[in-house]
Amino acid sequence: MGGEEIVEDKVVDIGLKDLSKKLEEFAKARDWEKYHSPRNLLLAMVGEVGELSEIFQWKGEVDKGLPNWEESDKEHLGEELSDVLLYLIRLADMCGIDLGQAATKKIGKNAIKYPPKLF
Amino acid sequence: MGGEEIVEDKVVDIGLKDLSKKLEEFAKARDWEKYHSPRNLLLAMVGEVGELSEIFQWKGEVDKGLPNWEESDKEHLGEELSDVLLYLIRLADMCGIDLGQAATKKIGKNAIKYPPKLF
Amino acid sequence: MGGEEIVEDKVVDIGLKDLSKKLEEFAKARDWEKYHSPRNLLLAMVGEVGELSEIFQWKGEVDKGLPNWEESDKEHLGEELSDVLLYLIRLADMCGIDLGQAATKKIGKNAIKYPPKLF
Amino acid sequence: MGGEEIVEDKVVDIGLKDLSKKLEEFAKARDWEKYHSPRNLLLAMVGEVGELSEIFQWKGEVDKGLPNWEESDKEHLGEELSDVLLYLIRLADMCGIDLGQAATKKIGKNAIKYPPKLF
Repeated sequence: MGGEEIVEDKVVDIGLKDLSKKLEEFAKARDWEKYHSPRNLLLAMVGEVGELSEIFQWKGEVDKGLPNWEESDKEHLGEELSDVLLYLIRLADMCGIDLGQAATKKIGKNAIKYPPKLF
Repeated sequence: MGGEEIVEDKVVDIGLKDLSKKLEEFAKARDWEKYHSPRNLLLAMVGEVGELSEIFQWKGEVDKGLPNWEESDKEHLGEELSDVLLYLIRLADMCGIDLGQAATKKIGKNAIKYPPKLF
Repeated sequence: MGGEEIVEDKVVDIGLKDLSKKLEEFAKARDWEKYHSPRNLLLAMVGEVGELSEIFQWKGEVDKGLPNWEESDKEHLGEELSDVLLYLIRLADMCGIDLGQAATKKIGKNAIKYPPKLF
Repeated sequence: MGGEEIVEDKVVDIGLKDLSKKLEEFAKARDWEKYHSPRNLLLAMVGEVGELSEIFQWKGEVDKGLPNWEESDKEHLGEELSDVLLYLIRLADMCGIDLGQAATKKIGKNAIKYPPKLF
């Protein structure tokens, strides 16, 4: 399922379980499951967080929407963000955590911890 | 939309855009958008990666599925994984990157870079 | 040897081996050596990098010398910088790497890789 | 001052201020001081922590002293550990923090927080 896939004029929302399933098939097809222990995946994710940080390291403050960035730099950024996401999803899976459910729950918990401003 | 919501006997897959929209509303309702610059969000995410790492730091190797972990520790882990995810999604949004699309593309790119083993 | 120790009117420079020895004695006296495997220490260090990042996360760009920071915030920052340093030194030791020697060598290598600007 | 320098049969301990001074001269000679804001250096350090993590990511548990590692892998590890150290020292300097003094103080604070085991 592509990110841009249009079904009846509606953009399809890529789901966490969909990505999770793709990653599982990916690992199986390459016999990589043996490497996917929780701490291996965590360190791999830290590695990708490092690559993401390198993109921003010498830039000083960066404006929202990244005006003036080259298209190729945005492409590179999208890849590093994705690498973090994919290892994160795989880590959650290998820990038996339903990430979508946990994230939805966490937003709810945060909403109680930080009540919206009243005007 | 809850992670466990069942529609016609099918588990609903939480989507990245769904979470993204929730985070946007969350920030707006608290007047927090002004804090959500790319580098602020990146550092906040690094902070959460640190909290995630702390869970695993003194444990030595950890088995898949986390056998023998207390339910409360798994709950805590789910929260830290979620915190990383939520800042990552928000960072992508503030950079104008479609994370679901980028991740799908990255899996495709990886599939070409690392062809499956043939038996 | 204290950081402020004055010998013949000269500030003593705290050495990496001096800190390393202190950390070794510290771990021995608490029977913590068994926890100090390379990956445990690495993840502990990532945890401290996270705490360090949290100090800077919502601040936007920060000026050199931290003008306008409260003394207590600088104190906190000094502690988090130290935590990263101490785990890094301990990690190097547990890997059998002489960190001072490696760092001196790396500066030399960088000097060749990036020659100084000529005016 | 080399890490291996022998003075009267005694190995010299590389000091944090010594490295700090070298880094200052290095930056000045290349006109790089303008890039060395606290958050730039912090993100650069996170990048190096990522490279360090990559060395350990697929290895499972690693024994102390790194038995069976190739000499070239240890060399690489020494470089990544050094990169983290050098950005950390530079970050402390740009924040006006005396890292050696802070670290010595932190060890003392930890010694009180975690009293040694009594036998």
